Amino acid sequence: MEVKNKYVTINDYINGTPMESDFSICEETISLSSGEDNMINVMVVKNLYISVIDGSGVGRVVESAHPDFKTGDLVTGRLHWGEYTVIKGVGVEFDYDTILIKRLELDPLGFPLSYYAGSILGSSGLTAYGGFFKVCQPKKGDKVFVSAAAGSVGILVGQYAKLFGCFVVGCAGTKQKVDLLKEKLGFDDAFNYKEEIDLNSTLHRYFPNGIDIYFDNVGGEMLEAAIENMNIFGRVAVCGVISEYTDKTKGPKPDMIAVIYKRIRIEGFLSVDFKDIYQEFISTTVHHLQTGKMQAIEDISYGVEGIPTAFVDLFRGNNVGKKVVRIAED
Amino acid sequence: MEVKNKYVTINDYINGTPMESDFSICEETISLSSGEDNMINVMVVKNLYISVIDGSGVGRVVESAHPDFKTGDLVTGRLHWGEYTVIKGVGVEFDYDTILIKRLELDPLGFPLSYYAGSILGSSGLTAYGGFFKVCQPKKGDKVFVSAAAGSVGILVGQYAKLFGCFVVGCAGTKQKVDLLKEKLGFDDAFNYKEEIDLNSTLHRYFPNGIDIYFDNVGGEMLEAAIENMNIFGRVAVCGVISEYTDKTKGPKPDMIAVIYKRIRIEGFLSVDFKDIYQEFISTTVHHLQTGKMQAIEDISYGVEGIPTAFVDLFRGNNVGKKVVRIAED
Repeated sequence: MEVKNKYVTINDYINGTPMESDFSICEETISLSSGEDNMINVMVVKNLYISVIDGSGVGRVVESAHPDFKTGDLVTGRLHWGEYTVIKGVGVEFDYDTILIKRLELDPLGFPLSYYAGSILGSSGLTAYGGFFKVCQPKKGDKVFVSAAAGSVGILVGQYAKLFGCFVVGCAGTKQKVDLLKEKLGFDDAFNYKEEIDLNSTLHRYFPNGIDIYFDNVGGEMLEAAIENMNIFGRVAVCGVISEYTDKTKGPKPDMIAVIYKRIRIEGFLSVDFKDIYQEFISTTVHHLQTGKMQAIEDISYGVEGIPTAFVDLFRGNNVGKKVVRIAED
Repeated sequence: MEVKNKYVTINDYINGTPMESDFSICEETISLSSGEDNMINVMVVKNLYISVIDGSGVGRVVESAHPDFKTGDLVTGRLHWGEYTVIKGVGVEFDYDTILIKRLELDPLGFPLSYYAGSILGSSGLTAYGGFFKVCQPKKGDKVFVSAAAGSVGILVGQYAKLFGCFVVGCAGTKQKVDLLKEKLGFDDAFNYKEEIDLNSTLHRYFPNGIDIYFDNVGGEMLEAAIENMNIFGRVAVCGVISEYTDKTKGPKPDMIAVIYKRIRIEGFLSVDFKDIYQEFISTTVHHLQTGKMQAIEDISYGVEGIPTAFVDLFRGNNVGKKVVRIAED
């Protein structure tokens, strides 16, 4: 079999905030003859949806010499930024994505396939679920602050926290996002951090009785301000540091004396560590979706040509909810 | 009863590193008539040993109108920087020190009373024990780094960690301390941080396979370097930040991206949170002392006049082990 594959390349090491001009669209021809000696365990996947931040996506197997996958299987996992993904080698490691592959083979449960492309039923969902329930160890009534609350993970953390019985305030960077959080997603309150001058006093205003849990997606000054406003035994789940990815000098200088006397726990995590609660995450989230208690908010771009802008937009804060690129119709 | 009481006062708000001239020695007359209406629950304690950093100490009750204490009781708890401590009021709160008071009433187990003055069988011991076993959650074979390792808490953490089966390296600020750690206390290695230029590469040299646990007594640059050298799922117990007490600008700027991808947990704590393991701490530590497996290293000064220098010395790093001031013979 031979197919044309359009894909995205990065021109050079990106210094600072990425721009569209850092990327190029290329084309190659992919050929695969199943069963040849040097092609053991190789398969070609036609990409359907791609999540640009972690490269996870959903695709359909179009050619396979891998014993566990056959042509027509719906799979999810780390896919390339292109029309096709060639997965090579003996002992390909799928990690927890293997579970998703099997699930999708059986039944996507009637949900859009995009939900599995690093979205609410994929890595963002698992990150939010595990980060909130395992790392933050919430108690009912806890006062929860979520930064980048209209982002792919924040938007889910806030919903889980509300359903669990917490008081939840989110921050975001536009009025549209703030309105979405308050009016559609049930956050108790939300604010536009770009309109605030002193984050310390802003957080004090929204949390006059202090913060118990801070789900951190941004790092930097917001983390410092959250620690200032934290209650004793407060927990900080460090999920992302968008303010630092492009400028390391913006890293936080948390008040460690406060960390001691308030016994604050600050903990980083990755969704790959939550394999053991994957089934619980899926069944809980599917239930919330089916009963209308949770909403998936997706921001969809189209085509391989749409990938660079979709990626760059994440750093500009242009996405609302999960940024997914639809590469092809199934 | 009437007694003369020599005591220490602080002249003014201390800005920066404290000096002897920040303190004065005063004298007052204390009188107490037990049983008077306005004297309910008052007692006067003659101070025997004082721990200058947290004010805990050991003393003997010399006059009491408190129903739970009688003249002659040996007590421990928060005592004043002076020859006597007057404890006033209904509902005096002793917190976990109450347990110590009862223990000492019965039997100081043959150990020097100084051990209970915030030392190995007091708050430093409980801080080290709880901080290491509860906060750090060690596994046998873990590679443990302790800063200010010849200080009151560090010196005990290193010993607990070795007895538990960890690999332990400590840092301190003089050759004398480094030698003590390596030659007398069984640390696997130790170094003088003042002789190091680049703490990142220093830690890499002592931990070529990375750090699993960092017991932090100093904060600042050392915390940053420890995080750089940390293994995945590393734990940082934040016990003290001596580098920051006198200069907040020296606070650390930890690499939060590393905190995420290495899933590092950074946690502050106080010994008052370890009430539930107090009995376990005492029995384990008493056993280690009685079998010669642990050593209490104390640095003793004498008299109320010795308190200011004892305190100031902590900031100069002059103490080796627990700094205790002996106020009077029992």
